[in-house]
Formats: sequence, C-alpha cells, structure tokens
Amino acid sequence: MKKCYFDHVATNPLHPDALEAMMPYLKEEFGNPLSIYEYGTRAKKAIEDAREQVAALVNSKPAEIIFTASGAEANNFALRGIALAKQNEGKHILVSRMEHHSILNSARFLEKSGFVVTYLSVDNKGNVDPEAVRKAITKETILISVTHASSEVGTIEPIKEIVKVAKEHNIIVHTDAVATTGNIPVDVKDLGVDLLSMAAHQFYGPKGAGALYIRQGLRIVPLIYGGIQETGRRAGTENVPAIVGMGKAAELAKKELQDRMAYLRPLRDRIIDTMAGVKNVFLTGDRDNRLPGHVSFCVEFIEGEAMLLLLAAKGIFSASGSACSSKALKASPVLLSMGVPAGLAQGSLVFSLGSGNTPEDVDYLLEEFPAVIKRLRDMSPFAQGWGDSDKAGECKI
Amino acid sequence: MKKCYFDHVATNPLHPDALEAMMPYLKEEFGNPLSIYEYGTRAKKAIEDAREQVAALVNSKPAEIIFTASGAEANNFALRGIALAKQNEGKHILVSRMEHHSILNSARFLEKSGFVVTYLSVDNKGNVDPEAVRKAITKETILISVTHASSEVGTIEPIKEIVKVAKEHNIIVHTDAVATTGNIPVDVKDLGVDLLSMAAHQFYGPKGAGALYIRQGLRIVPLIYGGIQETGRRAGTENVPAIVGMGKAAELAKKELQDRMAYLRPLRDRIIDTMAGVKNVFLTGDRDNRLPGHVSFCVEFIEGEAMLLLLAAKGIFSASGSACSSKALKASPVLLSMGVPAGLAQGSLVFSLGSGNTPEDVDYLLEEFPAVIKRLRDMSPFAQGWGDSDKAGECKI
Repeated sequence: MKKCYFDHVATNPLHPDALEAMMPYLKEEFGNPLSIYEYGTRAKKAIEDAREQVAALVNSKPAEIIFTASGAEANNFALRGIALAKQNEGKHILVSRMEHHSILNSARFLEKSGFVVTYLSVDNKGNVDPEAVRKAITKETILISVTHASSEVGTIEPIKEIVKVAKEHNIIVHTDAVATTGNIPVDVKDLGVDLLSMAAHQFYGPKGAGALYIRQGLRIVPLIYGGIQETGRRAGTENVPAIVGMGKAAELAKKELQDRMAYLRPLRDRIIDTMAGVKNVFLTGDRDNRLPGHVSFCVEFIEGEAMLLLLAAKGIFSASGSACSSKALKASPVLLSMGVPAGLAQGSLVFSLGSGNTPEDVDYLLEEFPAVIKRLRDMSPFAQGWGDSDKAGECKI
Repeated sequence: MKKCYFDHVATNPLHPDALEAMMPYLKEEFGNPLSIYEYGTRAKKAIEDAREQVAALVNSKPAEIIFTASGAEANNFALRGIALAKQNEGKHILVSRMEHHSILNSARFLEKSGFVVTYLSVDNKGNVDPEAVRKAITKETILISVTHASSEVGTIEPIKEIVKVAKEHNIIVHTDAVATTGNIPVDVKDLGVDLLSMAAHQFYGPKGAGALYIRQGLRIVPLIYGGIQETGRRAGTENVPAIVGMGKAAELAKKELQDRMAYLRPLRDRIIDTMAGVKNVFLTGDRDNRLPGHVSFCVEFIEGEAMLLLLAAKGIFSASGSACSSKALKASPVLLSMGVPAGLAQGSLVFSLGSGNTPEDVDYLLEEFPAVIKRLRDMSPFAQGWGDSDKAGECKI
C-alpha cells in the first residue's frame, strides 16, 4: 500500500546527511565536552561548530545560541527564565491564544507564582493584532511571547510589527519559532526579537535537540541548574550527537530553504484549491500567509479522529490539531480562539508536507480524502442535509 | 601511542548493541509517539518497552519511570518538583555536601525562593551520617536528597539507613543515582527511596537520555510544561532513539552487572594498592565501600590539571574532580567538605574504569602515573623536601 507521511509538524525524518554527521559521535567520539583531553576537546569543537551552523540559520551570533533538549524546554526556559529575571520590574506577561502548550502551560505556572498573564485574542485567520498588543501593555508588562507560526493552522504571525510596539515600551519579546525555523526565513535581527525557540526535528534534524536564541546581554534565569555547560545557562552533559545533527540540519536548511519552500507551496496550494470545491470543508488559518507545506481544514459534521483513522488505513498519515493534544480528545484551544465553533473544531485535520512528499502523494491524498469525508458523512446522523449546504472554502465564522 | 580512557564517570562510550537498537529510530521509524497512526504507535511502543527495561534495572514499576534528557534534568525535576508540591507542608530541605552541582545549585535556587536548606556534613571518607540526618530534621523538613555515590570520590552512601530515619518522620527521600545505576545494584524498593535520578550515558547508554523514578502516588510539579508526554509530567517530543538506547543499555547492565563489577574491582584495587606505595599520594573516599571502577587520589604539591595534561600527553585520560566543575578551576567542594585542605584538594585526580579497560591499561597507568608525579614534583617549588615525608596511602586528614 502507498504510504504518504503528511504530518511534518508532528516530526520529521532525520536527514541522512545529519545522521551521517552524528555517527562518529555515537561511536568513537564519545567524549564529554567538558573534559580537557582530546576526546573532550573534539566533542567541544563539534558542539561549537554546530552552534555556528544554528546561529547562521537564524542570523545570530553563536554565543547567543543555547542548546536545549527540545523546543518545549526552550519555551519553558524563555518564559520562566525571563519572568524570574525581570520580576522586580513587573509581573505582567502577554501571550497569544495561538501558543503551543509549552507556552500556555508555562504561563499558567507563572500565574500560580503570582504573575498576571493576558491571553491575546486573534482574528478568524489566527492573526495576532499588533494594536491589540499595544492595548494590552501595562506598566507592569515585562515579556511578550507570540508564536512565529502556529503548527495547527499554519498562520505566520506579524512578529516584526509586534516587536515594534513592544520596543516602544522596552518590553522583551520571545517568539516560539519551532514551526518556522528551517522552514521559512527566520532572522532574529530582522524580526527584532530578544528570544527565539527552535527544535531540530522540525527541520530534518534529530529529536533531542532544540535551542533558545538569547540576545546578547539579556539576563535569564536557568531552567536546569548544575554544571557550567552552555556558559552556565543550561546544565547537563551535552547530547553531542544530537547537537551535531542539529547543526548539520541547520546548515542544510539554510542552503536549501528557498528550494524547499518553492517545492512545497504548489503542492500545498493544489490541496487547498481542490478541497475548496468540497462542500462543508473549511480551510483554517490564512490562505496565503501560511507555512509553505501546511494545509489545515475543519470538516463539518465529522470527528477529526475518525478521518485520521480512515486516512491512516489508506496509508495517509496526518494529524488533528497539535500532536501534543491529539490524544487529549479536546477541541483545539487554538481553533476555539479563532472563533471556530466547538462542533466544527472537532473536525479539524492538518496535512503538513515535507521534502519527501511527491506530487503523486498529493494526487493520492486528493483522491482519498474526499472519499473518506463522504464515507463518514454517510454514517453521521449530524450530516443529514449537509449536501444542501453551499458553504465551502475558507473558514469565515 | 596507547590510549587508555579512564574517565567513565565523565561519560561512557555507547554500547554497540544500544546503538544497534537505536538505528531504526534514527532512520525509518521517525514517528512522533503521540501520533495515532502506525509510525506513532510503533514509536510509542518502543518508548514503553524501554520504560520496562529501565524499570527492571532499578526494580520499579514502568509507570514510575519518567524519561528526561539528562541526570541533571532529573535532579532539578526531583528537588524543585517536590519542593513546589510540598511547600504547604514545610519549606526545609536537607541535602548533603557530597551532591552534584545539579542538586546543590537547585538547592540554592530554592533558597532564593524562600526555602531553607541544610547542607549535611560528611566524614573524611565522604559518608553522610544517618544520625546527622536525624539531628538536622525539623518539623518543616519536606525532602532529603543524598547522592547514592559521589562520582568524585566513589563513596557509596548509606541510603537505606537515611531512608529509615526519614520515614520515621514521613519525609520524602531522593537519591541521585547517576553514578551508580547500571554500575552497582540499584533497587528502589530495597533502598526505600521515593525518587531516584539516573543517566543513560553512565551505563553505556546514549547521551540525551535520563530518567527519574517517582514512587507511585507521589505528587510532583513538572519542570518542563507542555504537552501530555510522560503522563503530563515532562513535556517535549520524546527523544525516541535515545530512550530506546537507554532501555537497551539498561537491559544489558542488568544482565551483566555482577560480571562487570567482578571485572572492575581487581583492576581498581590494583591501582589503589600500588599507588599506596607512592609517598604523598592519598586515596580519597572509602577504600572498600566505593564504586567498582573508581579510584581517586589527592597528590600533594601538584595541581590536578597539570597531572591531567601530562597524563593525556601519554594517552591516559582522566579527570580532576567532576567533569562539570573541571573547567572552573576551583578546589572541589566535595573534597573540601570531607576536610581535605584546599591546597591538597587542588591535586585531585579521578581514574574511573570501564568494561573496555584491560589489565594492560592498568599496567600502563601504574607505569606512567608515578613518573608524571615525579616529573611535576621536580618542577614544583612547593615540593621541596616532599621526599622526606612518610605520608602515603589513605587520606586521613
């Protein structure tokens, strides 16, 4: 049976070149980077080379990159590290309702610790309005965290404009760029952010490696205390193989970025355009200002989970919302925040394409997906009369 | 030139069988364990199999094992997670002066957050006295954390006796078993601890994988918030390959534990016995109640760093204290806490042996080490007259 992996926002296969770069560090080059003899110095050099590669991908200085074990760790580190470092200046934080659970749940933890968090609303395409940021700022605001792009609906947020507003008030800005780094241009200088999270496995690097960009001179409280690794800002013996793999993946992403985007966009657009002709299927997120390989729908009268399972039986692998909440079986807070009715939000589905997908994969999806929808609707008591509806296309709630 | 790696407390080579087990998850089995289709379910099963293997090594239930990215993360999670979960019952914590930086610096962080920490003294062999624990307990004490063994001096602590005292007062006990798990028997039921930290790369597993044993029913506040991974207690996309490698390494360690110990002890003892004949060289830690492959000395009138470098030039790779502080060039707090004078503590050296070391490696060490000491002493202005001293053997300060 044909197998089509359309869940690149959940995770990506490791690039063979990244694996090749990792192999020596999984074998003979096993040294601890803190050791002062040759095994250690070679491991240390490998990490510093990877730091340069990651820095080059996001246009930072190498010293501004701190390696973590995941994007989630980078997000926790950013939010809580800045909150603790700046708490004497104020205890108010802004986050958007589009954020990943690692941001939202860190924010809730901070609320329990006496911080006040404002959750910024978004429009029906998932955009955070910079003017809404301006209105939410108080004298107590110390940090604003808005995702660079939502992995659930693909919308790319106006980070530059948000930074502009924040800087009028000297407020620190963090962006969760886990979904974007290595997939669209991510330039910390151009964005103007103070902190930026990324995860290697989102751009064909290995699992177990992430990073936080921390603008030079910015004070942050560590999340993981211990030894002097990462200039004392993140303890624990470095995962050398994964860091090396992240470096190589970053180098490849930088080199191939435009080609990868140019390859994915037409595939993405073909899915969107074709599915626009299927009734009661609504595109979520922004039609154009979205991740290159990202397509997300809400399908009326059908559970996302049921579609996932039938598609998987056809060898088509996709997701219903974020991987981190898919098993929780709750309607996505991101979709609800965009004004999608709870019932419709249950029918959400995300197809995220990657370099390994072919035009034939897309043909197969466009053949099978409408058939799956029809089959489930024929079974659904809620779908009676759906065929009379003329709603189709973009989600305009 | 002969190369002898004697720094297994810093890190270990990855066992080839563990790497072999990891390879599919670095290649075709790249799925996210939270995904509900076949890539996800296979990755999920791989993690749960590894959880059983790790649980079997420490005699816990699989559900009591939470994977982390490092021993340092497990230590931070344990200390801070219990402190936050129990803060309404009291804000006093006991830790020993033998602890790793990830414990000590977590304790200092908690002090800044309003907790009171008592640092337990040790005797000149590095033993924590259970009676000293009893005396330090107050009505406010909520947590005791004592390392299972110090990687700096090899002494194995009387955890069972400490637990006995703690349980008279219903106090939670955590032990940092990073240096012991997979190297000596570690049985959470027998020890009676509530939490136990481990790190895969300390028993020939991969870097990037650690775990915290959390006794069933114990409430703990997460360190890393986000998705529902690890039953909501540790967020972040799981590092599947590293977790699989940790599981395989745990399985091997369980099977081979007695053989590995029986192989290492005579090698260790030969180094200790031979070096006992060299003047002004003092064994640190306990002569017998120590890690099987662990030898540590303080050499009078000489800097540990200088010995390390000369030994490294001969292809002998060792450490001066813990890897995490070796570059900080400070006298080890562990040695100072044992009463080793600051000057002598500067001359500390740790040789930690592993399965890959041969008797010939030890021959070579015993040939070169005394020569290195002599060479450095001949250069040292402090060493004049040292030859007249009759101090040798165990460190009895």
